[in-house]
Amino acid sequence: MRTVDLIHRKRDGEELSAEEITFLVEGYTRSEIPDYQMSAFLMATFFAGMSDHEVDTMTHVMVRSGEVVDLSAVPGLKVDKHSTGGVGDKTSLIAAPIAAAAGVVVPMISGRALGHTGGTLDKLEAIPGFRTNLTIDEFRSQLAEHKLALIGQTPQIAPADGKLYALRDVTATVESIPLIASSIMSKKLSVGIDALVLDVKVGSGAFMKRQVDARRLAQMMVGIGRRADKRVQALITDMDQPLGFAIGNALEIMEVSQTLQNIGPVDLTTLSLELAARMIHLGKAAPSIDEAREIAQQKLLNGDGYRKFKDVIQAQGGNPQVLDRFELLPNASGAREILSPRGGYITAINAQDIGLASAIIGAGRDTKEDTIDPAVGVILEAKVGQKIEAGGVLCRLYYTTEDRLEDAAQMIEDAFRISGQAPEERNLILEVVG
Amino acid sequence: MRTVDLIHRKRDGEELSAEEITFLVEGYTRSEIPDYQMSAFLMATFFAGMSDHEVDTMTHVMVRSGEVVDLSAVPGLKVDKHSTGGVGDKTSLIAAPIAAAAGVVVPMISGRALGHTGGTLDKLEAIPGFRTNLTIDEFRSQLAEHKLALIGQTPQIAPADGKLYALRDVTATVESIPLIASSIMSKKLSVGIDALVLDVKVGSGAFMKRQVDARRLAQMMVGIGRRADKRVQALITDMDQPLGFAIGNALEIMEVSQTLQNIGPVDLTTLSLELAARMIHLGKAAPSIDEAREIAQQKLLNGDGYRKFKDVIQAQGGNPQVLDRFELLPNASGAREILSPRGGYITAINAQDIGLASAIIGAGRDTKEDTIDPAVGVILEAKVGQKIEAGGVLCRLYYTTEDRLEDAAQMIEDAFRISGQAPEERNLILEVVG
Repeated sequence: MRTVDLIHRKRDGEELSAEEITFLVEGYTRSEIPDYQMSAFLMATFFAGMSDHEVDTMTHVMVRSGEVVDLSAVPGLKVDKHSTGGVGDKTSLIAAPIAAAAGVVVPMISGRALGHTGGTLDKLEAIPGFRTNLTIDEFRSQLAEHKLALIGQTPQIAPADGKLYALRDVTATVESIPLIASSIMSKKLSVGIDALVLDVKVGSGAFMKRQVDARRLAQMMVGIGRRADKRVQALITDMDQPLGFAIGNALEIMEVSQTLQNIGPVDLTTLSLELAARMIHLGKAAPSIDEAREIAQQKLLNGDGYRKFKDVIQAQGGNPQVLDRFELLPNASGAREILSPRGGYITAINAQDIGLASAIIGAGRDTKEDTIDPAVGVILEAKVGQKIEAGGVLCRLYYTTEDRLEDAAQMIEDAFRISGQAPEERNLILEVVG
Repeated sequence: MRTVDLIHRKRDGEELSAEEITFLVEGYTRSEIPDYQMSAFLMATFFAGMSDHEVDTMTHVMVRSGEVVDLSAVPGLKVDKHSTGGVGDKTSLIAAPIAAAAGVVVPMISGRALGHTGGTLDKLEAIPGFRTNLTIDEFRSQLAEHKLALIGQTPQIAPADGKLYALRDVTATVESIPLIASSIMSKKLSVGIDALVLDVKVGSGAFMKRQVDARRLAQMMVGIGRRADKRVQALITDMDQPLGFAIGNALEIMEVSQTLQNIGPVDLTTLSLELAARMIHLGKAAPSIDEAREIAQQKLLNGDGYRKFKDVIQAQGGNPQVLDRFELLPNASGAREILSPRGGYITAINAQDIGLASAIIGAGRDTKEDTIDPAVGVILEAKVGQKIEAGGVLCRLYYTTEDRLEDAAQMIEDAFRISGQAPEERNLILEVVG
């Protein structure tokens, strides 16, 4: 088998066999196939796509490249939740405690911020003392005790995916639907889950800009999961404006706390409850989705979700008091109001630009090596559909240094579209797949 | 400027600026851009193509990566001829001496056999003593004296193309029209030519299988040449069966000799004369193409072309007597007849399979490192359209060892299609571009 022939056939739209995909991915992981051939294969895949059979093989070869976390000793059905990434998306930290409070075991392995999108791990690390690097044994015993544990990717999980992702990142082959689907699913299938709820974002603040692409990605991931005998559902949700009001790590932890106390933003609360309900239903803690929605609602209203999150913060070395006393979180030293240049309706808030502006002042990172400033970010004062006066406050920018502050402020002001006419209402949850 | 952003934009179908293409090709030549990014860019180019402006820049950056051979000291217009590669294609060795005999200066830089196609350099090296590695000074002075010199690519000419070609070869990105066009034209524009005649092959024995692709390649190369102020024409010619009867290096030299004495195959003679006429016309040795055709015909019939080739063989260290005494050429030790399994009309001779079978027994090479056996090859005894009896001789296979002889014989037998009905006649010259 010659690598160049396999690249050639992929390029020409042929389907490769399981043996051929395995040869490529295993050969690359062992450094027997050079980067320059794999990057040509990845770009050919970007254009030619993959069959269900190919993407399944790709996924499972990446799973087999590392360890599979065995959670069979933890009683109960295990359900994870994954988002493809957005701006202000802190639903994991709301839905997971609610689902765990309802009896579902949630072994959550999260990622970091990259580009304009935030990452759950960075948000958690805004809590002083919080350890995201539990050992697998600690992870298992915390799951047995609290039904929820929140950790980061370990080098032992799907290392082939890690190596491939690093190559995709520098060869403009990140945005390939089968490559995204197999990357996400290989990490999820490397943990002993029974079910998975996916939140596939679409819009200006998401990697997928078009609903048709989001749907294809959702369908492909649901298919991979189902064929591996997992219960999987995907929501396709709007990311045309940031979710909630807060963007930035400590600011988002504050909003998580408010939302778990039922005083959070409507959009964030609605989506978090729906995700929790899907987790509860797939985890068989409710016989129907409607009953699961009732349970999720109840676990929010009675404070069980809020308490669950505090228990988990405590268990992972953080100070749970931060959820009540925000001054214990990292705080910005300066704030700048961004004012509306004219009166009218807010018709759009470009989420990608808000995310990039926040990243510029330290809330995100350009490269994996950059460090995060947990204190900084943006609090929106108005969302799409609201009316604003000329000179009214659109949002507040929280910063710790004035480096690049002007750039960020200008970018944020430009992210708001203001018009004389009220925009049409958009649905937050656009589709359910699976 | 970040390489990954340029790959991304090429992938998404945008046009890159001259500055950006220059950044990529110069950066790669200096090894500042790694192979894995360049191979992703090449595969993106395979799918997304290139604009005229992009392919011009690509060509000229590759020219500038090396030396440009200055032929201004050689009097007269310089005209080269280039074929995209075929099976049994020895037209260069017939057309070039005829054009030179007509007064055109022909500075011919040729390539080697690769895959199923032959290479002019390998054919010349079947002549004992023939030196294809003249220095540039020797090349220039031979051109001044004889108007024709035949050499190989030197490492000083368009080294960026050499580096890129090696990467394309192992990443399944050879068959991209803008990459082929810029590769060929960069080498041609690195020699001080005034005009160029291109022979773009199409059919089973060519790299281009479809006439529409051959036309796009021809148009792109003619465009690059014209925009560089060169007179360029391309013929699109049939390669659905081998050209002439001989395939294999010494065997083809014998056929060249016969054809220059006007006792060669009709198809080879016809195409060689047309190519020579185009060279004579573009080189302004005749005021019209019809007059150029008359001159070419005359230089064939009066033996001037034949004598010119002998002079050049002598000048480059070879023994010109090989053209009269074929026993001075390397000779095969064995011959095998391939017989027709049934009677009927020959409707097709798969040129690629004939080329591959010849390569298997030593006439060609799989990789650039393989050595050539100049003696071996195939002599066709029948061509498409001819009637054959059951048991009649289709061709003879000339070999020096029996290694893989059976494989080659089987492949050759399978290359012939025999049917009860005579095939429709095909034109040899399908189109003229430019």
